[in-house]
Amino acid sequence: MEIQYFFELFGTLFFGISGALAADEKSGNDWFGVTFIAFLTSIGGGTVRDILLSVEIMWIKDVNLIYAVAIGVILAAIFYKPLLKLRKTFMLFDTLGIALFTIVGLEKALNLGIHPVIAPVMGMFTAVFGSIIRDMMLNEVPIIFKKEIYAFACLCGAVIYMVLWKLDIDRNINFFVAGGAIVAIRLAAIKYNLSLPKFKSH
Amino acid sequence: MEIQYFFELFGTLFFGISGALAADEKSGNDWFGVTFIAFLTSIGGGTVRDILLSVEIMWIKDVNLIYAVAIGVILAAIFYKPLLKLRKTFMLFDTLGIALFTIVGLEKALNLGIHPVIAPVMGMFTAVFGSIIRDMMLNEVPIIFKKEIYAFACLCGAVIYMVLWKLDIDRNINFFVAGGAIVAIRLAAIKYNLSLPKFKSH
Amino acid sequence: MEIQYFFELFGTLFFGISGALAADEKSGNDWFGVTFIAFLTSIGGGTVRDILLSVEIMWIKDVNLIYAVAIGVILAAIFYKPLLKLRKTFMLFDTLGIALFTIVGLEKALNLGIHPVIAPVMGMFTAVFGSIIRDMMLNEVPIIFKKEIYAFACLCGAVIYMVLWKLDIDRNINFFVAGGAIVAIRLAAIKYNLSLPKFKSH
Repeated sequence: MEIQYFFELFGTLFFGISGALAADEKSGNDWFGVTFIAFLTSIGGGTVRDILLSVEIMWIKDVNLIYAVAIGVILAAIFYKPLLKLRKTFMLFDTLGIALFTIVGLEKALNLGIHPVIAPVMGMFTAVFGSIIRDMMLNEVPIIFKKEIYAFACLCGAVIYMVLWKLDIDRNINFFVAGGAIVAIRLAAIKYNLSLPKFKSH
Repeated sequence: MEIQYFFELFGTLFFGISGALAADEKSGNDWFGVTFIAFLTSIGGGTVRDILLSVEIMWIKDVNLIYAVAIGVILAAIFYKPLLKLRKTFMLFDTLGIALFTIVGLEKALNLGIHPVIAPVMGMFTAVFGSIIRDMMLNEVPIIFKKEIYAFACLCGAVIYMVLWKLDIDRNINFFVAGGAIVAIRLAAIKYNLSLPKFKSH
Repeated sequence: MEIQYFFELFGTLFFGISGALAADEKSGNDWFGVTFIAFLTSIGGGTVRDILLSVEIMWIKDVNLIYAVAIGVILAAIFYKPLLKLRKTFMLFDTLGIALFTIVGLEKALNLGIHPVIAPVMGMFTAVFGSIIRDMMLNEVPIIFKKEIYAFACLCGAVIYMVLWKLDIDRNINFFVAGGAIVAIRLAAIKYNLSLPKFKSH
């Protein structure tokens, strides 16, 4: 629980940075609008997960998550140029954010006894619904419906975690293998411009 | 309960087919994106209903609904051409889907003791919110805000059900009359290009 | 509680009028579509708040709120021209609506023992999420991401309420001061074309 909470805070901080930079880039908004969007991007995925799982929304009773987003937004404002560069070059914050959020969401679902077919979906939703909400609000087609491999990387990582979990692999090893797989798939997809096959050719 | 569950499964399967075909047509997406959208289209309406009714989300604890969507998507991939033709000509899957979902949602609300003015709205939401979510994500104006009669057909069917229910008509007869009305109104609206009067002329 | 409920009803009525007029203007929809959108605009914010607070959705068990929206829509249809003029000139209904909804949402959160940093966010969400949902559905960028000061006015009013509440000021005085501040900030922003500084210049 301890380390899960720590990861949730860091994932939220990373998404706060990434959300603020993306909101600023896509909308050229004022600081209030950028903060609002960064907030929704960071906590939107976990909120959707908690609503679906019928549990208390994590940030309603824990103000630390709000502070984590706020720190992310402030960091994005102060270190705008270097962070923007890091974001563009390595997709750093977003990729770390989705890896952490996938595992955190998956573990929360497993702790609640959710079916092993549905738990990985909860992990993926935690990771990607923040960006989906952001893009829906900014009137853009969400990233997961573009050719980039994004949500699929999260789902793959979640499935790997499930398999290792069934094999009784140590939780910490599992965390790093599954999280690492998400980062690796995502970065490989960007570097080699990988995409999944079309449903049907047109 | 037995037959309601059976209808929910079939409605989900029909919406899975319809959702996959619509997602493929509108977005030209990869199979993962199409499956993701088909999933949201199929279970989005029931999810919105369950959240509003403060009950457990139906598919979180029942993996069969996930399988029903998956089967719908696989059928859509295998029998793509004939199913697309059926969809275009008769609006078959979507129309059966909204009829089933309206009644299933309405009956769930009634079983929970929801006010007879609000229960039909729950039926309509179950039927149409899946498509609304899909269209919002794909950055299109939802079908219910276009001239076609769509959500209104569901609401009419739900009101007919309520009236017959108050008159103590047998549930199975009621089901077929109300569901049939939805199908009939929807198909008549398409065939005769019917639309409702404007709120105000411009 | 008594007066809070009264304000919720009036806020809902005002938003019903404003939502119907906006929906008609933006979409040129039929009366069903306009009513549907007016409904979502009016109760969307409170619905999001109640979901986040894990409490029963207010309008599911209280049909009076549905009637309040319906009366708003009917008034908008009958007194279309004068109400449209009032709306354009003074932003009357929308501004009164957000002021009432912010305080109602904030007080509901405080009564549930929500953290004083999060409670004002609940107030703001109650006021603005109805319009956000409406604009997302109509495929427009939500008003809060445009240059107008809108959600920020609600947040300011909510923070003022929190400060006076901590100072043990009488609730009714607090209500009028905080609500008045929201109206004043909103109207001043429109009149003097005020906007907040950009996050970063481009």
